[in-house]
Amino acid sequence: MSDAHGYVETHFDTFKTQLIDLLRIPSISTSSEHAQHVVRAAEWLAADLKRIGLDTVEIIPTEGHPIIFAEWMGAGDERPTVLIYGHYDVQPAVLSDGWKHEPFDPIEEDGFIVARGASDDKGQIFAHIKAVEALLASGNKPPVNIKFLIEGEEEVGSTHLGAFISSHTDKLKADVCVISDGGMPAPDQPSIEYALRGLVTMELEVTGPSVDLHSGSYGGSIHNPAQAIAEIIAQLHTPDGRVAVPGFYDDVLPLSDEERAELKKTGPIEADWLKATGVPQAWGEPGYAIHERTGARPTLEINGIAGGYFEPGFKTVLPAKAWAKISCRLVAHQDPNKIGELVKAYIQQITPPTVRSELRVNRGAPAAFVDIRTKEMQAAIKAYEQGWGKKPVFMREGGSIPVVVDFQEKLNLPVILMGLGLINDGAHSPNEHFMVEMFRKGIHTSIYFCETLSKQ
Amino acid sequence: MSDAHGYVETHFDTFKTQLIDLLRIPSISTSSEHAQHVVRAAEWLAADLKRIGLDTVEIIPTEGHPIIFAEWMGAGDERPTVLIYGHYDVQPAVLSDGWKHEPFDPIEEDGFIVARGASDDKGQIFAHIKAVEALLASGNKPPVNIKFLIEGEEEVGSTHLGAFISSHTDKLKADVCVISDGGMPAPDQPSIEYALRGLVTMELEVTGPSVDLHSGSYGGSIHNPAQAIAEIIAQLHTPDGRVAVPGFYDDVLPLSDEERAELKKTGPIEADWLKATGVPQAWGEPGYAIHERTGARPTLEINGIAGGYFEPGFKTVLPAKAWAKISCRLVAHQDPNKIGELVKAYIQQITPPTVRSELRVNRGAPAAFVDIRTKEMQAAIKAYEQGWGKKPVFMREGGSIPVVVDFQEKLNLPVILMGLGLINDGAHSPNEHFMVEMFRKGIHTSIYFCETLSKQ
Repeated sequence: MSDAHGYVETHFDTFKTQLIDLLRIPSISTSSEHAQHVVRAAEWLAADLKRIGLDTVEIIPTEGHPIIFAEWMGAGDERPTVLIYGHYDVQPAVLSDGWKHEPFDPIEEDGFIVARGASDDKGQIFAHIKAVEALLASGNKPPVNIKFLIEGEEEVGSTHLGAFISSHTDKLKADVCVISDGGMPAPDQPSIEYALRGLVTMELEVTGPSVDLHSGSYGGSIHNPAQAIAEIIAQLHTPDGRVAVPGFYDDVLPLSDEERAELKKTGPIEADWLKATGVPQAWGEPGYAIHERTGARPTLEINGIAGGYFEPGFKTVLPAKAWAKISCRLVAHQDPNKIGELVKAYIQQITPPTVRSELRVNRGAPAAFVDIRTKEMQAAIKAYEQGWGKKPVFMREGGSIPVVVDFQEKLNLPVILMGLGLINDGAHSPNEHFMVEMFRKGIHTSIYFCETLSKQ
Repeated sequence: MSDAHGYVETHFDTFKTQLIDLLRIPSISTSSEHAQHVVRAAEWLAADLKRIGLDTVEIIPTEGHPIIFAEWMGAGDERPTVLIYGHYDVQPAVLSDGWKHEPFDPIEEDGFIVARGASDDKGQIFAHIKAVEALLASGNKPPVNIKFLIEGEEEVGSTHLGAFISSHTDKLKADVCVISDGGMPAPDQPSIEYALRGLVTMELEVTGPSVDLHSGSYGGSIHNPAQAIAEIIAQLHTPDGRVAVPGFYDDVLPLSDEERAELKKTGPIEADWLKATGVPQAWGEPGYAIHERTGARPTLEINGIAGGYFEPGFKTVLPAKAWAKISCRLVAHQDPNKIGELVKAYIQQITPPTVRSELRVNRGAPAAFVDIRTKEMQAAIKAYEQGWGKKPVFMREGGSIPVVVDFQEKLNLPVILMGLGLINDGAHSPNEHFMVEMFRKGIHTSIYFCETLSKQ
């Protein structure tokens, strides 16, 4: 064990305390009332990066939330440069969603750190920062150059990162990009993701009367917007579970028999899936297994719906409007803008003349694929074997990391999706957690990766 | 003009100030956090009833909100007794619903008092209280005995009033019951309602996974409850606008040709209706005009819907549950309990096996009809002619007053639905208002009614 690995072991309790401090900051990027907390999380991380010895640490403002850039180039030009990407923003979370304790008051329980952002993605990016700290502090010169790019807008579609990357290709020049923002199927089964779904989000509003009306005086003579939005949403899928938007599947790259056979090896068992989620019965696109539906096929989800009076008690109104948040997960070769336009056109077509509807399509991101035959991937496989004592499996991931395609196309970099969490860490759910042992192994694996890469 | 009418004119500004004071109390009965305000409104009214000279004034606690009972029996046994019913609770209201000012900070503007409860029902019941004040203060002995029954639960289905009436039939003994909780079509066209729709409210919850899940990791493999509730709601009506619940129309008393012809006289013009409501096109049960749909036919409305993340911004979750508030307006001879059970059975039948649904049916009230050939009705017609200078028309009302049937059946009383508001006062809507001139005419009309009744 090199000095860096020894440093991790002697400092691990401190690392954990630091992570818990970071998790106390409610850096919810989608909510403007938390904008100051997002900035505070950026400042916290920048201070830590400076403290551990990065040469350059910058907090770069954008029109949205700031980007952190940091680098240490002391390994020299002849050594490879690793660009490590992560995000310090988190999904919304409030106690009443079903958390057992305040989501931003982290606890350590049964070997897990429980808090919003523990796994997605503060814990995972922090593992790399601690790996770099160990490499810098170990007394030996780190074997590779390091760049960090840590954003605060991943959970809102990485709105400003694409433009930043386009205009800073020199600054971001590297040999490989490492992204840890995903999960393994089990703590003893490391995995590397090779495919991510794309994402496009949309906001639908259906309006009827100009104000909420008395349901006794007006009900039955006006098309109720809460009913009309339900009628529209009900037409977004066919009764058997396909997305009903015309053209939705047109550009989808079909799964090959070989890939289906390979995916089957790591796919979940339906009974386990039902037990883990608590649903009475599975659902989805006919002809595909659960893991294909979530990993390899495009979907359309209602993320939220509201209209009228939905608090405790009753208010007999005919609501003026109802709204829904809709998102599509995309696969190769679907174009997020085109999908947004298809959904928009279809909703316009099915909106009855008795109400008005408007669909706002947000900026999307296409699906991403990673070449698993690169030498950098070989270094990642070896690093996992050393960190976990087991060869990683390759998996598709149902979630999305909008910026992967930017790294590939704009920086021409091989990307390694080095997930350090677990798929059931509860990212986006109540009681999100990060296994302490995964944090420890993740730090070691990041060090092994740098060490192996430098010797190639 | 008798002394009582003169008293009204000299004291009208004070009456208005008093009403505005009452309107400042946010006595929202559906919300437990406003329970103290409901009590405060009861105490405010009881104090006013005592001050103006009622003999007995009681605030009677119930398991819900208190009932106010007050009486003045000084006219003597040979004179008729008028039981005046109203309610001091109001519908919910917050500025963000679309109010131009705080709903419980009343303003007087362009001849209207604007505040939640101004018309429904604080302003209307207060007109009667001020009429009684004028009769008691005028120096002449009032020509009739007076009883007031004012409840705090009308907007939540008059939960405890029915039992109170059943167990206090002696206390409530009277010759006629006057209810002012409705609206006229125009300020210069007085009207008397002869039919009210019944009401039954229901709360639907659709659940899927045990917690909100990451829509990328789980979307497409689980039936999304926000989608499933939309699919259920979409099946509650046929595409042409009828209620699709089997048996829903079975007990409906058909409209006679004579009644349809009579109703047509006061029915709104479709163009006016569209302009007033702001909807692009009318909607509803085929074969019926707007005023028939809202007044004489039963309906099913979605009063509210929610699920997942519906705040500003985005959260890519697959929600654990979604819920809706549903109510049916009923006509003769529909039974609210039976209708609730029909809706429940139908929703059970159409709930897919991939989610769970539960429908909770609240206590309902049947539709009510008033005999328009009684001598008390003749007194009411004459009172309107004196107060408004015009003969009233008879109308059906789409709304519901749950307690009407109790007065008829338990107290065996003729009921007069003496609306003193306007149908477009915005009851249950933002910017609810009460026309100052209607308040003044209402007080005079109430006095005329007592005077005429005493001479029959």
